[in-house]
Amino acid sequence: MKIKDKHYQTIWYERDSSFVKIIDQTKLPHEFIIKDIHNADEMVNAIFTMEVRGAPLIGGAAAFGVALAAKEKKDFDFIKKKGNDLIKSRPTAINLEWAVNRMINKLINVEVSNLFEVAIQEAQEIIKEDVGFCKNIGIHGFKIIEDIYKIKKDTVNILTHCNAGWLATIDWGTATSPIYHAHQAGIPLHVWVDETRPRNQGANLTSFELNNEKIPNTIITDNTGGILMQKGFVDMCLVGSDRTLYTGDVCNKIGTYLKALAAYDNSIPFYVALPSSTIDWEIDNYKNIPLEERNNNELSHINGLDDAGNLKNVLIYPRESKSFNLAFDVTPSKYISGLITEKGVCKANKNEIISLLKN
Amino acid sequence: MKIKDKHYQTIWYERDSSFVKIIDQTKLPHEFIIKDIHNADEMVNAIFTMEVRGAPLIGGAAAFGVALAAKEKKDFDFIKKKGNDLIKSRPTAINLEWAVNRMINKLINVEVSNLFEVAIQEAQEIIKEDVGFCKNIGIHGFKIIEDIYKIKKDTVNILTHCNAGWLATIDWGTATSPIYHAHQAGIPLHVWVDETRPRNQGANLTSFELNNEKIPNTIITDNTGGILMQKGFVDMCLVGSDRTLYTGDVCNKIGTYLKALAAYDNSIPFYVALPSSTIDWEIDNYKNIPLEERNNNELSHINGLDDAGNLKNVLIYPRESKSFNLAFDVTPSKYISGLITEKGVCKANKNEIISLLKN
Repeated sequence: MKIKDKHYQTIWYERDSSFVKIIDQTKLPHEFIIKDIHNADEMVNAIFTMEVRGAPLIGGAAAFGVALAAKEKKDFDFIKKKGNDLIKSRPTAINLEWAVNRMINKLINVEVSNLFEVAIQEAQEIIKEDVGFCKNIGIHGFKIIEDIYKIKKDTVNILTHCNAGWLATIDWGTATSPIYHAHQAGIPLHVWVDETRPRNQGANLTSFELNNEKIPNTIITDNTGGILMQKGFVDMCLVGSDRTLYTGDVCNKIGTYLKALAAYDNSIPFYVALPSSTIDWEIDNYKNIPLEERNNNELSHINGLDDAGNLKNVLIYPRESKSFNLAFDVTPSKYISGLITEKGVCKANKNEIISLLKN
Repeated sequence: MKIKDKHYQTIWYERDSSFVKIIDQTKLPHEFIIKDIHNADEMVNAIFTMEVRGAPLIGGAAAFGVALAAKEKKDFDFIKKKGNDLIKSRPTAINLEWAVNRMINKLINVEVSNLFEVAIQEAQEIIKEDVGFCKNIGIHGFKIIEDIYKIKKDTVNILTHCNAGWLATIDWGTATSPIYHAHQAGIPLHVWVDETRPRNQGANLTSFELNNEKIPNTIITDNTGGILMQKGFVDMCLVGSDRTLYTGDVCNKIGTYLKALAAYDNSIPFYVALPSSTIDWEIDNYKNIPLEERNNNELSHINGLDDAGNLKNVLIYPRESKSFNLAFDVTPSKYISGLITEKGVCKANKNEIISLLKN
């Protein structure tokens, strides 16, 4: 998608320098910085510090990390060791392990002289597949937006939470892909963007993305979606998923559940967009999903620009107060109108999920 | 209630200097500043800039403002003019107009030489009445907490939203009054404090209050209450009300509705504490309550302490992004377990409200 009218992906390989390039997302939206990643250790650091984030992008970044290890040293054991470092950089991201294992398996019987070339090709393949998945999510989700537009014949108001945008993937995004497809097809849209405390990825990333694609959008606090739905200002909700149980329950950024409740209370469709790779085929009761607790600093401190335009990190809580930072919540399947995947749209229940998505 | 182990009310008259003293709430929690108010104009400014806020406190402040006008000039027309200035300082606060009118009516036939003394007595009377209302809310609400404790026999976890605390009133608060009473009676408590974007009154004021009363509390983002209720970490919700329709629907700080939905979904009691003066006996459909839109700067900018301990105001949104700032939402009566008032507890429906609260 575009930043300042130029097309970008979130990560790419530059053949001339044989470096990998990333957009440093910790500086967005205030600064747009493209960064060179020279080796696997730098990629570990970029994932750890969340310069790259979002499950699909982390997978792609890890794949490139393995390729950079192969460039550094044409030695399979060395590459494997760096692969393990990459896996450990964000232990809860399932994609990360999957991408590294796929890369390592591909390289097992490759001749030493070909290691780097095969690795970089496989990493590019992973990237390309992800772009394809996201594009197909957009094509399927587009029809849902188009159907609303055909009846309403006026601007379609979509509420989204967090950033399931192209910045979390390689291109298109998951929840944003139907929005980008609808916009490109000329359907008038307006997006309500939950700021998404504590990390404010909605305000920092989703609104930034939509601004750059010239899609009208308005940031609201996470408290605001309910009354907007009561007042009829929302036509549909569209969010991403970090982990989707095969029973249809969705684990996504904290706060998603509250919006699903409000959508249900006001008979507003609530859709979840996801690549089928995020389906969890093992856990069948959402109460068994482990709660990820993150650092309290994410709540008590925030980044912003001061009057002089300098980026500052400030304390916004009473110094002696305790806080508690859960990253995800669970939306029970009964509140979900449907799942939008690269293979099509299905209801959030076991039968439809297995029938559409299980190989 | 206490700040640094010393008892305070939010506003008081100092007979020696004949000034009114307030706690400057715009500086909390980072700085605790007591400010002298010398005349009505200074009180207008204190209300306008939200150095004093919260409907009951604003009413008390306006009453003292009228008294200060009577001190400045023993002239009824002058006092009345200053009363009008006070009413205009926060036009949406119903209490403000009520308090000023009560003061002016009291002064109509008073001899010039007695104007100030009568005015200051009446202002003190208004203050005293409010303290009594809040105290009685606490006594009635205490029983609900006590009943939960009798069954659970372990720490009672209460979730609250925004600041319906003593800082919004003169003393005790509304939603916090049952909490303070339960704490003083020795019931073990823990309070989940919604930070309450955009102005963060939960983090800035409620947590500050509870810290000073030594009541264990934890700040969470507004997104977090839902999963905590799913996981069984919340025993009851307790919030305030800005306007309560006689039909039982409650208009309160934005985000209250989402917590009520989650409480209902998880069979957790959801109580609203309010003085009967906030009952709206006219509007009978919550869809007819006007939406109060506030300045977008409240969302896009935030105050915090930088590394050097200096209070900074920083921009946290993309500069070009739009935002929308609604102050209140509406919780339909069906999601409310009960209303806690100074006259007792009732169900949130027309019959019970009229029977308990209509004179």
